[in-house]
This record gives sequence, structure tokens and C-alpha cells, in this order.
Amino acid sequence: MTTSAKGRSRAGVAPPEGAATPNEREAGVGVHHYLDDVRWNADGLVAAIAQDATSLKVLTLAWMNRDALERTDQTREAHYFSRSRNKLWRKGESSGHVQHVREVRLDCDGDAIVLLVEQVGGIACHTGHERCFFRTLADGAWHDVEPVLKDPKAIYGDG
Amino acid sequence: MTTSAKGRSRAGVAPPEGAATPNEREAGVGVHHYLDDVRWNADGLVAAIAQDATSLKVLTLAWMNRDALERTDQTREAHYFSRSRNKLWRKGESSGHVQHVREVRLDCDGDAIVLLVEQVGGIACHTGHERCFFRTLADGAWHDVEPVLKDPKAIYGDG
Repeated sequence: MTTSAKGRSRAGVAPPEGAATPNEREAGVGVHHYLDDVRWNADGLVAAIAQDATSLKVLTLAWMNRDALERTDQTREAHYFSRSRNKLWRKGESSGHVQHVREVRLDCDGDAIVLLVEQVGGIACHTGHERCFFRTLADGAWHDVEPVLKDPKAIYGDG
Repeated sequence: MTTSAKGRSRAGVAPPEGAATPNEREAGVGVHHYLDDVRWNADGLVAAIAQDATSLKVLTLAWMNRDALERTDQTREAHYFSRSRNKLWRKGESSGHVQHVREVRLDCDGDAIVLLVEQVGGIACHTGHERCFFRTLADGAWHDVEPVLKDPKAIYGDG
């Protein structure tokens, strides 16, 4: 963590020193933006945890870039950045399993987000499980302890 | 995500092909280890979400290396890898705010972990908040919506 990055993330708690002049305000200079409080990693991403707003189960961990977070805030539907496909991704765009966002939280040092969501269809994971965290550690091995609710082929089609 | 990394993470669901010979088994060759099912990132780390086992609040997002996950499993106390201090870190070693681990979950593609924990002292965040996610997004700004339960100076001392 660099000093400048830390100073920047803390700027969210109190407005930065030095008020903008009227001309600066008109030009958008000195206007503080919530996206600047996020401590984006070297790839421009932040970790985003989706938690079911009703059951409080942790559903998914995904990644957001600036665009994904801004669209999530504007549309109140979860958007992420797909690292494997290298593009913005509206959750549910293929599956219909949209996440309606009730609340967006940021952590103390600005490098993690929690979304409280209503999970459409009750399935958050591409495997057809309710959520991605369906494996538990016991006796030195991971065990599947939650069922597949829907065959992924039925969710996404065979192709 | 490379094909080989994906194949490796999936090896956790079914044992790898090719059984070990008796001599290999004796030498530990071919013995499948749960740590090999985790898809460690380029820095050898995996994201680890701590969730309160009772309230189900998401407390922290931290990072683990192999050693941290193994010690967490063995001791049932959360261990992480501190990226800023570049070393293994037993949660609570300075503050006393240990996390007793009830359950360890791994996600579908092996690159995120959820710990269900009992949070000693009821404070998970170094800022003295119950948890790190005390800021919520509203009207284009982050707002502190949870109180500081204990002054960090009282937790860690002035030094």
C-alpha cells in the first residue's frame, strides 16, 4: 500500500482540503467522486462480495472495474468485470439470474465491496448451485454439501 | 484463467487420473491435497471472506497463502497473509480479536474462501468498528453508518 493510495482512499471520509473555486466547480475540478475512494488494484479492479439480502448467505465473489461499480450504482443491478472474458458483465445477462442491489458497502481501506442483493431465480452460481461456496473443508478434503438446483445446460443452453 | 489452472482446480472434485503405486503412496506421491484444489493467484494468495457465524454479517476480506490456510485448518483460528507486512498473520495476535473458525468453504472455481467465524471481542476491524464494511453508498458518496466500538489506541496502544 503506497502512502498516496492510502491518502486517496481516506479522502472519502472527509472532503479533500482546499475548496474549489466557482470556475473549478463548473469545470468539475475539485469535485469529489465516490469512485476515487475505491483503492483499485494494479488491474483497475476491486473485489466485490455479493450477499443475499434476505438469507445473508455469501453468494459470490467477483471483481468490478470503475465502469461496473458506476453502472451497478446507477441501475441497481450488479455489474462485474469478467477477468476471463476481459469485459464488463451484467450479472444474469445470459442466465437471467440478475442481482437486484439493495445496498453497496465499502471496507475500511477501500479495497473490497459488499453488495446486498436480491438474487433472481435463487441461483447465483454458473454451476446451477444457489451460490458458489458449496464446498466445505472436512478431514483434509473439500466436499460438495449443497445441491445443484438447475442443470447448467438448462440455464445456458448446450452451446 | 488458463486451462491447466482450471484443470488443477477441478481435480478437487474428482481424484486425478492415474492411481499412485504403493511406493508412491508411501512417499506421498499422488496423494491428493486439499491445498492443491485452491487456485492461488500469481502472488500465491486466495481471497478469504470472514463471516460472523451467528449474525452472518460479512466482517472482513483478507488474503491467505498456503501456510495461512493450512494453519487455519489445523488450529481452527483464522490466519491470513498480510500483503502490506508481507508475512503470515494470526488474526488477533496484536488486538486479541481472534477469529475462531467453525467452517471453511471454497467457491466453484477455487479462487475464494468463506470462513464462518466466532469473532472474539465483537470487533473485526482495525479501526475499532465491528467490521470493515461500515461505509454505505448513498447519493454519490460513502457514509459511515456503523459506530467505532473501541478506540484503536485502546486496542493496539499508542505505538
